[in-house]
Amino acid sequence: MAGMDPLALDELVTANRILAREGIVDAFGHVSVRHPGHPDRFCLSRARAPECIEASDVMQFALDGTPIEPAGRKPYAERFIHGAVYDARPDVRAVVHNHSPGVIPFGVTGVPLRPIMHMCASMGTEIPVWDSRTSFGDTNLLVTNAAMARDLASALGPRSVALMRGHGCVVAGASLREVVFNAIYLELNAVLQQRAGALGEIRFLSDGEVRAVLDTRTSFTFERAWEYWCQRAGRPYDERPMEGPLART
Amino acid sequence: MAGMDPLALDELVTANRILAREGIVDAFGHVSVRHPGHPDRFCLSRARAPECIEASDVMQFALDGTPIEPAGRKPYAERFIHGAVYDARPDVRAVVHNHSPGVIPFGVTGVPLRPIMHMCASMGTEIPVWDSRTSFGDTNLLVTNAAMARDLASALGPRSVALMRGHGCVVAGASLREVVFNAIYLELNAVLQQRAGALGEIRFLSDGEVRAVLDTRTSFTFERAWEYWCQRAGRPYDERPMEGPLART
Amino acid sequence: MAGMDPLALDELVTANRILAREGIVDAFGHVSVRHPGHPDRFCLSRARAPECIEASDVMQFALDGTPIEPAGRKPYAERFIHGAVYDARPDVRAVVHNHSPGVIPFGVTGVPLRPIMHMCASMGTEIPVWDSRTSFGDTNLLVTNAAMARDLASALGPRSVALMRGHGCVVAGASLREVVFNAIYLELNAVLQQRAGALGEIRFLSDGEVRAVLDTRTSFTFERAWEYWCQRAGRPYDERPMEGPLART
Amino acid sequence: MAGMDPLALDELVTANRILAREGIVDAFGHVSVRHPGHPDRFCLSRARAPECIEASDVMQFALDGTPIEPAGRKPYAERFIHGAVYDARPDVRAVVHNHSPGVIPFGVTGVPLRPIMHMCASMGTEIPVWDSRTSFGDTNLLVTNAAMARDLASALGPRSVALMRGHGCVVAGASLREVVFNAIYLELNAVLQQRAGALGEIRFLSDGEVRAVLDTRTSFTFERAWEYWCQRAGRPYDERPMEGPLART
Repeated sequence: MAGMDPLALDELVTANRILAREGIVDAFGHVSVRHPGHPDRFCLSRARAPECIEASDVMQFALDGTPIEPAGRKPYAERFIHGAVYDARPDVRAVVHNHSPGVIPFGVTGVPLRPIMHMCASMGTEIPVWDSRTSFGDTNLLVTNAAMARDLASALGPRSVALMRGHGCVVAGASLREVVFNAIYLELNAVLQQRAGALGEIRFLSDGEVRAVLDTRTSFTFERAWEYWCQRAGRPYDERPMEGPLART
Repeated sequence: MAGMDPLALDELVTANRILAREGIVDAFGHVSVRHPGHPDRFCLSRARAPECIEASDVMQFALDGTPIEPAGRKPYAERFIHGAVYDARPDVRAVVHNHSPGVIPFGVTGVPLRPIMHMCASMGTEIPVWDSRTSFGDTNLLVTNAAMARDLASALGPRSVALMRGHGCVVAGASLREVVFNAIYLELNAVLQQRAGALGEIRFLSDGEVRAVLDTRTSFTFERAWEYWCQRAGRPYDERPMEGPLART
Repeated sequence: MAGMDPLALDELVTANRILAREGIVDAFGHVSVRHPGHPDRFCLSRARAPECIEASDVMQFALDGTPIEPAGRKPYAERFIHGAVYDARPDVRAVVHNHSPGVIPFGVTGVPLRPIMHMCASMGTEIPVWDSRTSFGDTNLLVTNAAMARDLASALGPRSVALMRGHGCVVAGASLREVVFNAIYLELNAVLQQRAGALGEIRFLSDGEVRAVLDTRTSFTFERAWEYWCQRAGRPYDERPMEGPLART
Repeated sequence: MAGMDPLALDELVTANRILAREGIVDAFGHVSVRHPGHPDRFCLSRARAPECIEASDVMQFALDGTPIEPAGRKPYAERFIHGAVYDARPDVRAVVHNHSPGVIPFGVTGVPLRPIMHMCASMGTEIPVWDSRTSFGDTNLLVTNAAMARDLASALGPRSVALMRGHGCVVAGASLREVVFNAIYLELNAVLQQRAGALGEIRFLSDGEVRAVLDTRTSFTFERAWEYWCQRAGRPYDERPMEGPLART
């Protein structure tokens, strides 16, 4: 793809395959990365199941969702989610939108999702639930235009995660490896919180503990997980230190 | 098979393999398609586990369940389900009967199954539960004659799904790809509704939201999922636009 | 093995592999068959995980658990379970003992396991729970002698299934294919009954429905499932009609 | 690795792969063994996901966590857990630290984990929950120094298992094969106890039954399970009797 390093492209393909292998996406859901050289663009596959995506499927989009050199490829209807988050959040370099099964029950009941173990602290202490019906009424729930996407990005605010009622969630991160990590451990947190809540009252991580996890976490945590997920997804692991906007924090 | 396009045959084999791979059927359960050239016939495998089915297993049946050119092959005892639905519903071109594990608990408790997320809206807003015992008393619960099948088809009415108490469900669609999609997301809805209901009161999709999903859904949704499921089932993905009665809506 | 048809031996190996593949046994649990030519003997592997068993592992035992031609092979400590059931039940030609995860919760809570769907009716309408502690006090719970095994067989009585508190269950059948079928669908029933009970009051199969399933079931039901499970376990499917004591009912 | 038998090294790699295959560890969690020839050292991989570990990743550590011949390899931040347990417990020859999903809910709710079936009796009758916050306040919950590790080892006391609130657990054993067995059946016990508790009041193993299991258990139990887990993990099974500190009890 013009202007994008082949290794960065491969990394986006790998992110798709990992999310599929780990059950975070099925035929639906998507992951994007802010363009390393053009911060006003993002890279996202054409509309295709993440498990099937190849490097040639990756397209570039302006932040308003307009495809750049589409070459006849059909984009995801919900690409606006990604653009609106990149637009509102200069710190975000990667975005996942998914409907993983553990997360859905929290979005439709209003039970607050909170960090239950250290690995899941990246989701933060407060996770909002965005309901498309509040501002947009009866729709097909898909975020298919800039107005809905801006409303969702506004609910996300400065956080890493927002749930979407009857739909799924959006997860933001400072790198692809971080956002994939966050999406996978968000799902695990949801599953564990449901189980623990059925047993009794949960002692969640304190706000201070969450802050301590976030303050001491290094990119090595993401690397260790990435190598493992690459192996499970049958993808080569690229351990090169990366430079530029895609570098691991 | 006489009078059936090899590609349409392959598609029916693929539908069987996908339903097995995704856990919708085990050794039992079946999927049929209305004959593309003869709307008064349907195509269904001989009595065999869906995971094992080959093109040569596919038989043709009249809508009353009579096999056409059986050639010594043993038909499913419950083929009457398919015939009765095709007979009552000219709009239906594919039928699944299955016992997927998420669905059974709803059929035996009377808790209404309702759409919990956008992907599952195809099941509709009201899902009836048919109990063979109401009209037929103590049986082995199998729908092995035209009278039982007509009674079930009547409970289904104009809907996409009916549950069968202590047995499973029947799912109807306008194409094979749609009916497979509906059966898989029905199972997901059941699993998610059970989990969410254990957390608290569920805010289901509104009737308006369900209508909006159904009104805006295009065949591309089924295609994207079909490619993914083909890959998981180890089957080639046929992306040819299909003509005639099997065409995607 | 002396006096045993190679095909019958293969079938016992396949039964072990299927039970492992379907999650009914892990490293522990075992399945036996009454010797086709010597009804006062049964065939059972040496003490080994079912997933690893080969034909050369199969030993013969007298009904009191004495190994015949052990050739240095170590028998299962709990082989007495099998002998006692064959001794008490001339109609039984195959026995499974396992600890499958869905079943354990029913054995330790006393919640009666009852048939929730037609596929699971083979377990019967009443499933007793045997507690080794009642007659034998504090033991390691293993059934390692004839007295305990006779007590368990007596609790089983004329039924297909008995649960063992804090341990697992014993399943009896008229053939290997039937007993494997019964063990797999017993586990499924337990999982589904747990889920349904969490939703609301369950409408179980009536006694008349269970009788109707048992009265109308033919060996073809077991064959269809057996072919499927063979394929999943990577074992050849032998569709030969079998003669003698191993014949399918 | 200097001073370590290649077969013992292979056994540690296999232990890592088994724990990954059985879902006890994901990218995180680790298993160590006391050095066979130097009881004041332990062997543990460099910081890497267990599924990816090779023999060349294994490092040696003094009991205070100091790496011996690190050769540029990055150690696990939590290696102190292992050292403190070996220091406090001369009987322990292998340690697992993990965050398996069934265990987490018990650590955060205070519901006591108790043996529900004979296979799980190795966990003992009383399992303490250690909370890092009690003595160390708001941390990132990682046990990254000797003071925290000693506190945890003290909570473990003479037992096989201690839970860690919002984090996971530590499991100790007399051999690698025993500790892997204990970690796997601890997870199973947690899953089954959660399910059984949802059904009704649980009749746990009595203290006398737990003692009887522990008193009569032989190393053969671990061998039978190890062969099975090796096969599932794609690792060769070494059935040689081992000599020295690694010998099976």
